[in-house]
Amino acid sequence: MKNKSTNLRVRLPALIFALEVMIVVLYAVFVTYEDDANALLQNNQTRPMENSLYQNYPFFTDIQVMIFLGFGCLLAFFRRYGFGGMVFNFLIATFTIQWAILVQGFFQFYYDGKIHLGVLNLINAEFACAVVLISFGAVLGKTSPVQLLIMAVLEIPVFGVTEWAVMKYLKINDAGGSILIHIFACYFGLGVTFVLYRPSLNEGHPKETVSYQSDLLSVMGTLFLWVFWPSFNSALTFKGDDQHRAVLHTFIGLSASTITAFALSSLLSKNGKISMADVQNVTLAGGVTVGASVDMMISPVAAYVLGILGCIACMLGYKYLSPFLAHRLRLQDQCGIHNLHGLTGLISSLAGICAILLANEETYGPSLYQTFSHRAPPEGDPLLAELQEFIPDLEAGLGRTAQEQALFQVAAVCGTIAVAAVGGLLTGVVLKLPYLASPSDEKCFDDELFFNVPPDYNCVSGPQDVWSYVLRDTNITNADWCNKNTEQEEDE
Amino acid sequence: MKNKSTNLRVRLPALIFALEVMIVVLYAVFVTYEDDANALLQNNQTRPMENSLYQNYPFFTDIQVMIFLGFGCLLAFFRRYGFGGMVFNFLIATFTIQWAILVQGFFQFYYDGKIHLGVLNLINAEFACAVVLISFGAVLGKTSPVQLLIMAVLEIPVFGVTEWAVMKYLKINDAGGSILIHIFACYFGLGVTFVLYRPSLNEGHPKETVSYQSDLLSVMGTLFLWVFWPSFNSALTFKGDDQHRAVLHTFIGLSASTITAFALSSLLSKNGKISMADVQNVTLAGGVTVGASVDMMISPVAAYVLGILGCIACMLGYKYLSPFLAHRLRLQDQCGIHNLHGLTGLISSLAGICAILLANEETYGPSLYQTFSHRAPPEGDPLLAELQEFIPDLEAGLGRTAQEQALFQVAAVCGTIAVAAVGGLLTGVVLKLPYLASPSDEKCFDDELFFNVPPDYNCVSGPQDVWSYVLRDTNITNADWCNKNTEQEEDE
Amino acid sequence: MKNKSTNLRVRLPALIFALEVMIVVLYAVFVTYEDDANALLQNNQTRPMENSLYQNYPFFTDIQVMIFLGFGCLLAFFRRYGFGGMVFNFLIATFTIQWAILVQGFFQFYYDGKIHLGVLNLINAEFACAVVLISFGAVLGKTSPVQLLIMAVLEIPVFGVTEWAVMKYLKINDAGGSILIHIFACYFGLGVTFVLYRPSLNEGHPKETVSYQSDLLSVMGTLFLWVFWPSFNSALTFKGDDQHRAVLHTFIGLSASTITAFALSSLLSKNGKISMADVQNVTLAGGVTVGASVDMMISPVAAYVLGILGCIACMLGYKYLSPFLAHRLRLQDQCGIHNLHGLTGLISSLAGICAILLANEETYGPSLYQTFSHRAPPEGDPLLAELQEFIPDLEAGLGRTAQEQALFQVAAVCGTIAVAAVGGLLTGVVLKLPYLASPSDEKCFDDELFFNVPPDYNCVSGPQDVWSYVLRDTNITNADWCNKNTEQEEDE
Repeated sequence: MKNKSTNLRVRLPALIFALEVMIVVLYAVFVTYEDDANALLQNNQTRPMENSLYQNYPFFTDIQVMIFLGFGCLLAFFRRYGFGGMVFNFLIATFTIQWAILVQGFFQFYYDGKIHLGVLNLINAEFACAVVLISFGAVLGKTSPVQLLIMAVLEIPVFGVTEWAVMKYLKINDAGGSILIHIFACYFGLGVTFVLYRPSLNEGHPKETVSYQSDLLSVMGTLFLWVFWPSFNSALTFKGDDQHRAVLHTFIGLSASTITAFALSSLLSKNGKISMADVQNVTLAGGVTVGASVDMMISPVAAYVLGILGCIACMLGYKYLSPFLAHRLRLQDQCGIHNLHGLTGLISSLAGICAILLANEETYGPSLYQTFSHRAPPEGDPLLAELQEFIPDLEAGLGRTAQEQALFQVAAVCGTIAVAAVGGLLTGVVLKLPYLASPSDEKCFDDELFFNVPPDYNCVSGPQDVWSYVLRDTNITNADWCNKNTEQEEDE
Repeated sequence: MKNKSTNLRVRLPALIFALEVMIVVLYAVFVTYEDDANALLQNNQTRPMENSLYQNYPFFTDIQVMIFLGFGCLLAFFRRYGFGGMVFNFLIATFTIQWAILVQGFFQFYYDGKIHLGVLNLINAEFACAVVLISFGAVLGKTSPVQLLIMAVLEIPVFGVTEWAVMKYLKINDAGGSILIHIFACYFGLGVTFVLYRPSLNEGHPKETVSYQSDLLSVMGTLFLWVFWPSFNSALTFKGDDQHRAVLHTFIGLSASTITAFALSSLLSKNGKISMADVQNVTLAGGVTVGASVDMMISPVAAYVLGILGCIACMLGYKYLSPFLAHRLRLQDQCGIHNLHGLTGLISSLAGICAILLANEETYGPSLYQTFSHRAPPEGDPLLAELQEFIPDLEAGLGRTAQEQALFQVAAVCGTIAVAAVGGLLTGVVLKLPYLASPSDEKCFDDELFFNVPPDYNCVSGPQDVWSYVLRDTNITNADWCNKNTEQEEDE
Repeated sequence: MKNKSTNLRVRLPALIFALEVMIVVLYAVFVTYEDDANALLQNNQTRPMENSLYQNYPFFTDIQVMIFLGFGCLLAFFRRYGFGGMVFNFLIATFTIQWAILVQGFFQFYYDGKIHLGVLNLINAEFACAVVLISFGAVLGKTSPVQLLIMAVLEIPVFGVTEWAVMKYLKINDAGGSILIHIFACYFGLGVTFVLYRPSLNEGHPKETVSYQSDLLSVMGTLFLWVFWPSFNSALTFKGDDQHRAVLHTFIGLSASTITAFALSSLLSKNGKISMADVQNVTLAGGVTVGASVDMMISPVAAYVLGILGCIACMLGYKYLSPFLAHRLRLQDQCGIHNLHGLTGLISSLAGICAILLANEETYGPSLYQTFSHRAPPEGDPLLAELQEFIPDLEAGLGRTAQEQALFQVAAVCGTIAVAAVGGLLTGVVLKLPYLASPSDEKCFDDELFFNVPPDYNCVSGPQDVWSYVLRDTNITNADWCNKNTEQEEDE
C-alpha cells in the first residue's frame, strides 16, 4: 500500500505527457525565430559574424555548465541521494527551460502575435531555471519528481510575472539577479518548505548523511559554479566596460568569500577542523553578494569587502539561524538556501542601493546614464542630445534621481519577497495534494524509492550496517571497533 | 599461457611506436600550416582578430570537452571497467585525431602538395574521433587497446573516403552529422561486433554490472555531452542565422527527449522506478534526431517533436530491439549504439528529407540557396546574379530541385550504411587475428586485465563477494541478508 | 598535545584574517579599473564589442577550469587525501590570485600611482597561481593549510620579481611559460621539499595509497587540463596567426605525448599493464614541452616530436630519477613535478633556443619581427619603417640577432633555476617554524587531521583493515583471501 502511493509508473508519465502536449501546442501556435535566427530576414545588410549569437552563446554555454553540472553535482551531496540530487536536477532544469521559454516569452519577447526565440531567450530561461533549482534546494530529498515538476510549473509563472512587473514598472538595477533570482528563489522555496513541514525530520534522519565520495562530488559542483559565476553575473549586463566590471567584481567577491569561508569554518568548529559543507556552500556567498551592484563603479576593494560580508552572514546563518528556523518557524531549509541566497541577496540589495546613491557623473562620466539607464534624461530633454554626443547608443530614460532609484530598489526587494513567499506557500499547498507520490518520512533522502539502484547500493549507503552486523556476531560493538581502529592509528 | 596472450608489454608499445613512426614521416612530408596559421602570409591586409581561429576555437573547446570528458565519463559506467571506459577512450581519441588530421587532410585540405592544418581541421578530426568512439561503444569491455587502436586505424580511412565521396559527389545537407557521423559509426560498430560475437556473453556476465559511483560518473558524462551538444551540431554550419538555428534546435530537441526519457523510463519499468541507464543514454536521443535538419527553418516546435520521437525510438530500441539483435542476429551492442545513434539517425535523415522537400523561398527568402547550397543556380545563370544582390556571399550551385536533393539524401543514407557495415565486418575480421591481446570471455569488463589496479579493486568491484563470504561463515545466505536488510528498512 | 599542535582553530583564521586586512588596505589604496573597465573613459570613440574583455575572457574561463577543476581533481588522487588535494587546491588558488593581482600589478600594471585591473591581470594571476599549485605538488599531503598559505605568500613575490626581471631585462620568448612557469615552479617546489625532508617517508607510508574512485577522479583532472591546455599555452601570445599556431602545437604535442605514455607505461611495467599514475601525469608532458616555442613556425611535425621526447623524459624521470632524488638528495617530490614540469621544461627551453636560431625571414616573412619582437630593428632604423609597411602594428625592438636572443634565453633558464631554488629553500626554512600546524609523519596523507570526515571515512580509506579484521576471526589471512579470490576468478 505504502509503496503504491509513491509508485511513479502512472503519475510521472501522465504528468510529463500532459505537459508535453501543452508545450507542443503552445510552441506550434506561438513560437517562431527571432530576427537573427530567421533566414527570411537575412539580406545584403546583415553580416553573419555580427549575429547576436556570437555575443550571447559563450555566456550561454558557461551557464549551461553551471545549471547541469554545477547544481547537479552540488546537490548530490547525500550519501543515499546522489541520483536524486543530480538526476532530478537534470529533469527539472530541462523542463523549466522549455516552460520558461514560453512564460518569459509572453512577457518579454512577444510581438506580432509570436514569441521570438533566440539564444538570448535561452539565457533568460536558464536564469529562471536557476530560480527553480535554488528553491529545489529547500526541499531536496523530501519531494517526488512529480511534486518537483508541479513546483516548476507553478513557480515559473509567478517568477515571470514578478520579473516582468519589476522590470517594466519598478525598473530596477539588478544585473546579477540578487533580487529577482536569489531573493525570489529563496523566499519561494521557504514558502514551499513551510507548508511541507515534517516534524519528524527535525530530530535528524538516519539517511541524512554524506559519504567521502559524495562530499568530493559536491565540491566539484561548487567548483563548476565558482568557475563560471562571472559569466552568470555578467551575461545580461551592457556590453563593454559594464560587462568587464561585472566579471572582475564577481571574481574578486568569490575569492574573498572563499578564503573567509575556510577561516570561519575552522574558527567555528569545535575541533578546529574544516567542514566540507562549508566548503561546498559558504565559499560561493560572494558571488551572490556582489550581484546587485556588479556592473557599477563600486571599486575592486568594495567587491572584496562584499565577498567577506556575504560569507560571514552566510556562515552565521548556517550555524545559528538555520537551526532556529527549522525548530521554531517550521522552515526546514534542506540546503540552507536562506543563508546562501537569502541573507546574501539582502546584503547585495543593500549594497546596490548604496552604490546607486553614491553614483555620480564624476565617477562614471556620461556612462552614468547608460549603467543607470532610468536616470537618463527623458525623451525631448536637451540634455539627452548632449549626452548622446558622448554615448551615441544612449537611450532616453525617466530622469530619475539617485534617491528615487534607491526607493524603487527598496520597493522591488519588498515586493519580490512578498510575492515569492505567498507564491511559495500556495505552491506548497498544491504539493500537499494526494497522488503526487510524496515520500513517507522514512523514505526521504533515499534513492531506492524512485530509482532502480545498483546491487552495491546498500553497501554504499550503509557500510556501518554491515560492520555492525559482522561485529554483532563477534560480540564487538561498532563503538568498540571505531575506538580500536583509532587507537591503532594513534599508536602508529 | 592465457595471461601471456593478453600481455600488452610488447604488443601495445610495438603498435604505438610503429604508428608514431608512420605519423612522424607523413607529418614531416605532408603537413604544413593553413594560411591563417602561417606567419609568412601575414601582411598589412590581414587583421589578426579576423583570423579564423576566433570563429572556430570556441566550438573546438566545447567539442574537446564532449570527446574527452563526455564520452570518457559516459563509458565508465561499468563497476569494474571504469578505467577501461575512461582511459581507452582517452587513448583512442588522441590517436584518432592525429590520424584523422592526415586522412581527412588528404581528402579535404590538400593542395599545393601539402595538407594545410588549422583549427578547422581539428574540429573535423574530432568529428571523426566521435565516429570511432561511438563504434567503440558496441564493443566496450570486449576488446583490448591493441584491437581498439587497429579499429581506429581502419575505420578512419573508410570514414574519410565515405565523407569525401558523399560530400563531393552526392553533396548532401547534414549539418549535425546524423548520416555521416551517427549512422556511419553505428553500422560500422555493428559490423565489428557481429564478427566479434561471443555466444557466452548472451547469458549475461558476472562482471557486467554497475555501481552507485559508476552510475553517477556516467551521468556526469551525459551532462557534459548534453551541455555542449549545441556546439557539436552547429560547429560546421554557415555562420549567422544558420548557426543560430542549429543551437536553438539542438537545445530544444535535447530538452524534449530528456523529459520524455524520464516518462518512458518510469512507464516501461516493472516497478515504476527510473533506470539510470535510460538517464545516461536515452536523454541524449534528441541531439541526434535534430541533426540532419538542424540548420533549416523547421520551426521550434518541429525540433521539439523530433526530440520526442527520437527518444521514443531510442527507448523502445533499448527495451525490445537490442535483446532481439543480440540473441537472434549475433549483434551484441554493448552500449546500445543502434538505439542512440542508428534509429535516431534514421529518423533524423527522414526528417531532413521532409525539411528539404518543404523548403521554399517563401520561408527562407534568398537564403534558401545558401542553406541548400546545391539548389543555388549554376554559374552563368542570370538568376544567380540576381540572388547575389541579396546575399553577396552566395556561391554558384547545381540548380538542383528539392526532389533531386531529397533523392541524393536517400542515396547517401543507403550508401553510408552499406559502406559502414562492410567496413565494419572487414575490420572485425582483422580484429580476430591472433596476437591482438583479445580478452578471454571471463576477463571481459575487467580492468584487472590491462591495468595495475589499486588495492581496493576487489572491494569496489565485488562487495557482495565479501558479504557472501562473511555470511557463509555465519550460515546466512546473501539473499537472507538482503531480505533482512530490506525488512529492517520497512520496519523503520 | 600532538593534536593541539596541528589544531587550525586559531592559526588558520588568524593568518587568513591578517592577510585579508592587508589585501583590503592595499586594494583600497592601489587598485583601480583598467581603462576598458572604467566607465569614465567610455565615449563616442569606444566600441563596446572591441573591449579587451572579449579577446581575453574565453581564455580566462578555460584557464579557470584548469586551475580549479583540473588541478583540483588531479591532486585528489590519494585514497585518504582527496579532500586535502581538492580543497587545499581551492584555498591556495583563490588566495594566490588575490595576492598575485597585487604583486604582478605592481610590476606590470602600475602607472599613475595605481594598479589597473582588468581580465588580462586575472589571466596573469592565474598563471602565477599555476606556479604555486605546481610547487604544491612537491609537498602534497605533508603540509598544513597554514604552511601552504605562507608558501603562497612568499612564492608569489619571488615569482613576480623573477618574471618582471626576465621580461624587462632579458626579454625572452616563452609564450607557453616553460621557463617562467614550469621551471620556476619546479625548482621552487624542490627547494621547499628539500628543507621539509622527512626521512621516515622514504620507507613508504601506509596511507600513501590510491583507490579505484580516487584514480578515476584524478584522471578527470588530467582530462580537464588536457582539454584546455591549448588555451593556457596560447592565452598571452600575439593575436592572429601566432595564437593559431600555439593552439595547434599544444594540441599536437599533447596527442603525441598521450599515446607515447600508454606505450611506455605498458613497456616499463613488469606485467605489461598500464599504470594509472602514468595516465594521470605523463600524458600531459607534451603540453609543457611545446611551451617555449609554441607560437613559432616550428612545423607541426616538430610539435609532434617534442611531445614524444617530453613524454619519454618524463616517464624515465618517474621511473628512475625520482627514487634517486628521494633517497640520495633528500628531494621527496610527491607528485613528481620534476618529471612533469622540470625535465620537460628544460627540453622545451632547449627546443625554444633551437627554434630561435633557425628562425629567419624566409620562413616567417616580416612577421619574424613580431613573433621575435626583440629582433625588430630599433627605433629610428630605416628598416623599421620598411617593415611597418607590411606589418603596421610592428613595434620597435632591440635589433638583436638570433644568437643574442638564444644567449638571453640560456641566461633566463639559468637565472630562473637559481632564483627559484634559493627562494624555495628559504621558504622551506620559514615553513619549518613552529606553530604552523605541520602534520606529524604518521598523520601525513590523512584528511582526518584537518577535516571533519564523514562516517564512512575509515571504510573508504581502509577496507582491507575491515577484511583482515573479519578474516582474523575466521583464521584466514588477507593473503589467503586474495589468493582464494584470484583462484576463483581463474576458475571461471
